[in-house]
Amino acid sequence: MDHTKIPFNVEVLQVSVSKETFMEEFNTFLYTASFELPKLSWWDKQVKLTEIFKRFLRTQKSVCDAVITNKELLSRLQVAKFDICVADPLSFCGELLAELLNIPFIYSFRFSEGNAIERLCGGLPTPSSYVPGSTTGLTDNMTFVQRLENWLLHVMSDVMYLYYLFPEWDEYYSKVLGKPTTICETMGKAEMWLIRTSWDFEFPYPYLPHFEFVGGLHCKPAKPLPKELEEFVQSSGKDGVVVFTLGSMIQNLTEEKSNMIASALAQIPQKVLWRYRGKKPDTLGPNTRLYDWIPQNDLLGHPKTRAFIAHCGTNGIYEAIYHGIPVVGIPIFGDQFGNIARLKAKGAAVEVDLQAMTSSDLLNALKEVINNPSYKENAMRLSRIHHDQPMKPLDRAVFWIEFVMRHKGAKHLRPASSNLTWYQYHSLDVIGFLLACVATIMFLVTKCCLLCCWKFAKTGKKKKRM
Amino acid sequence: MDHTKIPFNVEVLQVSVSKETFMEEFNTFLYTASFELPKLSWWDKQVKLTEIFKRFLRTQKSVCDAVITNKELLSRLQVAKFDICVADPLSFCGELLAELLNIPFIYSFRFSEGNAIERLCGGLPTPSSYVPGSTTGLTDNMTFVQRLENWLLHVMSDVMYLYYLFPEWDEYYSKVLGKPTTICETMGKAEMWLIRTSWDFEFPYPYLPHFEFVGGLHCKPAKPLPKELEEFVQSSGKDGVVVFTLGSMIQNLTEEKSNMIASALAQIPQKVLWRYRGKKPDTLGPNTRLYDWIPQNDLLGHPKTRAFIAHCGTNGIYEAIYHGIPVVGIPIFGDQFGNIARLKAKGAAVEVDLQAMTSSDLLNALKEVINNPSYKENAMRLSRIHHDQPMKPLDRAVFWIEFVMRHKGAKHLRPASSNLTWYQYHSLDVIGFLLACVATIMFLVTKCCLLCCWKFAKTGKKKKRM
Repeated sequence: MDHTKIPFNVEVLQVSVSKETFMEEFNTFLYTASFELPKLSWWDKQVKLTEIFKRFLRTQKSVCDAVITNKELLSRLQVAKFDICVADPLSFCGELLAELLNIPFIYSFRFSEGNAIERLCGGLPTPSSYVPGSTTGLTDNMTFVQRLENWLLHVMSDVMYLYYLFPEWDEYYSKVLGKPTTICETMGKAEMWLIRTSWDFEFPYPYLPHFEFVGGLHCKPAKPLPKELEEFVQSSGKDGVVVFTLGSMIQNLTEEKSNMIASALAQIPQKVLWRYRGKKPDTLGPNTRLYDWIPQNDLLGHPKTRAFIAHCGTNGIYEAIYHGIPVVGIPIFGDQFGNIARLKAKGAAVEVDLQAMTSSDLLNALKEVINNPSYKENAMRLSRIHHDQPMKPLDRAVFWIEFVMRHKGAKHLRPASSNLTWYQYHSLDVIGFLLACVATIMFLVTKCCLLCCWKFAKTGKKKKRM
Repeated sequence: MDHTKIPFNVEVLQVSVSKETFMEEFNTFLYTASFELPKLSWWDKQVKLTEIFKRFLRTQKSVCDAVITNKELLSRLQVAKFDICVADPLSFCGELLAELLNIPFIYSFRFSEGNAIERLCGGLPTPSSYVPGSTTGLTDNMTFVQRLENWLLHVMSDVMYLYYLFPEWDEYYSKVLGKPTTICETMGKAEMWLIRTSWDFEFPYPYLPHFEFVGGLHCKPAKPLPKELEEFVQSSGKDGVVVFTLGSMIQNLTEEKSNMIASALAQIPQKVLWRYRGKKPDTLGPNTRLYDWIPQNDLLGHPKTRAFIAHCGTNGIYEAIYHGIPVVGIPIFGDQFGNIARLKAKGAAVEVDLQAMTSSDLLNALKEVINNPSYKENAMRLSRIHHDQPMKPLDRAVFWIEFVMRHKGAKHLRPASSNLTWYQYHSLDVIGFLLACVATIMFLVTKCCLLCCWKFAKTGKKKKRM
């Protein structure tokens, strides 16, 4: 990483995991998530995902430990009197460091599986009936079977976090902080959750005053392209260009896959800029150029850009929304399936399946988003909504970070639900108590009636006898 | 009303209810709510409240009908091509007019009993376990019995609206719109709900993207006082002044009550400005002056003001928060009980009970908020929080009204929960289905086991016989 470009002080820490091991683990994680998981059944997918996530968190723990046990570093941080800690709860540790330093912390977060962390630790209500999990392709309008699937995902995620992932961290946090606590309790102290989506893109769902939706905070107007790129883009004439990237995580495809993609691209009248570091496909058309790197945001903001072929990472999606570009989505893992589902539901994208797609699938998808004007119109509508906010997402993020620094927290925004158990939260104890009361009353009334009947019958018999 | 001061065109409509009848009804409503309800039991209070509210709505209906059946007015409004309709769902009709004119509408709203309208028609989740009803004195930290009370209030409010208040309006809306509909369905089409509280004051609770909290939008810096008032205020020296009003709705108190209050006020070193139109109390001290009207906001913003004795209407409370003035609250009806509970929980107020208070109760409350510095500190903290928002409440309200006008709606903010029944929303059908599956499997397994045992036993017997 080039530290000279970062406008703040970055410290490189010695940790017990080597960079090679970490990258190897990370690449295994990526490969499994991208290419193995899609082949598995729903159940096996959840189990496998949990397993690789636990392994990832275990590596994270040794990184965490290297910080927490570094007395010199901790005392230096203590002396520096930081005002705030910014963390991402996808991997744990930030909140622990903040607690140790006794400073407020805020989260910058995309999502957790089934929104379990947001729900369990942040108090967010996410009714599974209309809040689809971010890793599913579901929308907010579900059939019974889809609601069943989403409910199972919610419940499984809760179980996975509470009984499989959290326990060893509960123990670790308790040990480090020297008091019995849980990681969830510590996470619940976040002063503010800055969520990296917003309602231009996300299906509306309930949230809390200490959640702020800052999706697209990184977006900015396009800068002019380098001369060579600009010439290539201009050479496309009135047909325009297509921008294509599967993100920085997927570097290579199989030769078969890349040839299949290249031959589809060769058949469109547009020029194509493809960010790809693998072997040059044999079927590459004269209209397509490969690049090690592209200025993605500047290209998406170029007036000649007609479509964006993307793996649907949130950042890329937001750049497409910002510039109003329709998308052909090839989701690979994680929230990418949810991202494309959202864009599709809003009519600004077409999805193709990386595993199953043929050359003509990709070609048809491209023709559809480029030639059917509704996709461009919908993309522009999303763009207009994104730009028409009371305050820019970056400004809101900065405001709340500085608010927490000014007021040493934002406790007035935190709901009291964290004091309740899950059954108290859902009023199950109240309902149970009332049902018990009703049952008791019914029992007593029945008993009384029976007693009366019995007495009456007895008297009747006596009378008869007389 | 002086129409010359209103910067927009106001039309006075002929309705079938006379002003006298309306005011009489309104005053009966006020009197019952203020002085009769507090004497009733919890249950009778709810029943009585529902009854007087239904009567109030029935009057409202004849006002509504005068608009809806006025063809000339409707066609004039249609021709004028309004961009938006702003309504308050406490009394119905605005949404019906907007539907008839086929224009988007937004709500400006304080609350409904037990948040029933927000929950049933707006999709707001309001867990009764930590979201106290606005008419109760409960906080967000409740005992079991309090949660039970709050749960009953929620359920009763739902029942009251759904089965007692709404039905005749459902019929009316269906007739007017010429299609089967419900008032709740119509209300659910509100593009935006501008709620007149915020988190400086309200306990945090979950909300939705089309809810915006604009509490205190009417607040503004204090203007200089008229000469006579300023002289009286300055004459208080370092002791300062106390501002006292029970709002414009309560004009008079009983002679006994006003004497008791006046004698308490006479015993404090502060000068008191009391907005009161009743008979001058005999016990009025030389430090207290009565006024028909006071410039409340300018007085609360005066540096000599030490405390505010108020009935705790939301507007007055927000002016106190805006200027950081501690409050002695004498709640009389409606949300005033909830308002004082919120201020008390935040340590910025003391409550006295209008029915039960003695002269010394009021005196002690006044001494407490004036002499114990924690009240002023907490009031100032609330004030700092109120002033430290990313955008002023009025600007946010204006933004969203104009947003709806620009985009002809804000459908992207509306949750999909309105498509679900209540049992679907809570996933009860999914849970029921899964329980049925489990029960079936258990039944089959048991049956199989029994069958096996029976076969085994039979074979055993046969063998024995052989």
